[in-house]
Amino acid sequence: MLNNIRVVLSHTSHPGNIGAAARAMKTMGLSQLYLINPRYFPDPQAVAMAAGADDILDNAVVCGSIDEALQGAVFTVAMTARLRDISIEVKTPREAMPLLAQQAQAHPVALLFGTEMSGLTNEELGKAQVLANIPANPDYSSLNLAAAVQVMAYELSIALQGELPVLDAVTPASYEQVEGYFSHLEKTLFEIGFFTTQKPARLMQRLRRLYARARLETEEVNILRGILSVTTEYNSRLRKRYQEEHPHV
Amino acid sequence: MLNNIRVVLSHTSHPGNIGAAARAMKTMGLSQLYLINPRYFPDPQAVAMAAGADDILDNAVVCGSIDEALQGAVFTVAMTARLRDISIEVKTPREAMPLLAQQAQAHPVALLFGTEMSGLTNEELGKAQVLANIPANPDYSSLNLAAAVQVMAYELSIALQGELPVLDAVTPASYEQVEGYFSHLEKTLFEIGFFTTQKPARLMQRLRRLYARARLETEEVNILRGILSVTTEYNSRLRKRYQEEHPHV
Repeated sequence: MLNNIRVVLSHTSHPGNIGAAARAMKTMGLSQLYLINPRYFPDPQAVAMAAGADDILDNAVVCGSIDEALQGAVFTVAMTARLRDISIEVKTPREAMPLLAQQAQAHPVALLFGTEMSGLTNEELGKAQVLANIPANPDYSSLNLAAAVQVMAYELSIALQGELPVLDAVTPASYEQVEGYFSHLEKTLFEIGFFTTQKPARLMQRLRRLYARARLETEEVNILRGILSVTTEYNSRLRKRYQEEHPHV
Repeated sequence: MLNNIRVVLSHTSHPGNIGAAARAMKTMGLSQLYLINPRYFPDPQAVAMAAGADDILDNAVVCGSIDEALQGAVFTVAMTARLRDISIEVKTPREAMPLLAQQAQAHPVALLFGTEMSGLTNEELGKAQVLANIPANPDYSSLNLAAAVQVMAYELSIALQGELPVLDAVTPASYEQVEGYFSHLEKTLFEIGFFTTQKPARLMQRLRRLYARARLETEEVNILRGILSVTTEYNSRLRKRYQEEHPHV
């Protein structure tokens, strides 16, 4: 179960924080570390701060993109320091970690952390099903990256020891299935001319949130993509007929 | 309420950990830092790791002994990495922090952390009412000092936001009242000759644990010390009579 859980650190600036995060993970039994474009890695400072958790650094997967890091994951919790005005759910660690633990019983899942200075981008947040915020002093909310990893890993470890809700007998869609759907959706919305009156990026963000809340199943992705295919076929049939009837337009 | 809570770090080796602990405290709204004989303090590494929490370092109270650091506290939770074979209660952070929060509503309390390498001594642990252990990977349980402060401060902050049990209408004995009783007790046990057949240090440790569980009130300390006084008076009367009746012994 613990091996199903990856900790993903995006664009980390300080290698010492990567090492300290590895140490924090190991104290709570986690071992799968993914690094998206770390500024310095491998690095002796990371090893120094890992203090015996260097096996986790040795096995860390360095990725060139978030898509690579989340490949195969069916559920992602992304950390945010801000309580944003967007419609995606923001949960406390104590609410979010049992959900992650529940999925981890059977599927790969991810816990996603942003950079030290600015956290995760909106695009990265859009790839998660749930956002989590560690409640902090409103006048000074800047937890150190590794300290945040420690708190989340601690909550996760307690959630894993507790009684987990039984998984539904459904197959949650994988990261790439969900992303495949969003690409298909965006392409379709362009094709049918929907985006001429809407801002594409902002609208896609809203749609991502909607489906993040719904937590898509594989079957549902297939249905939705089926609808998209029929939509464009219908659209291209219409266009064809129109062109036949108006050969000179 | 937050000002009633002091974080006490005993004999910290690395000044960076003191700074990181100050940062962890501040993210959770804590500000009272007490340092017992830190190896290096003040120190630029502490300031660097505090990352904006240097007001907490500036106001830190450097103490020469644990007695000085716990002066006035009515309740102390001490951290332990080991689940010791002693009879003092070892609680999880989630069990211990509501107790600390409850007392902090009206009285000074302390959260006590040991050194990076060896934690707290048995003598230091004996000064606490409750021991707390952060459940960790049995093969690698060494949380960084500041990471442990972060986890405990986080649990404490959640406990403070929750509904706290109402305080009993009693006055808990202060640290120095309890220590005054133990000194009196030890002296008395010597005087009455009890220690001739027992190991004083080990026995005092056991007695400390007993009273730690009981959580003495001021009134009770007065009663117990009253009994001790009468005991030695009775004893000295006995000795006097014996000497009068046996003038040549």
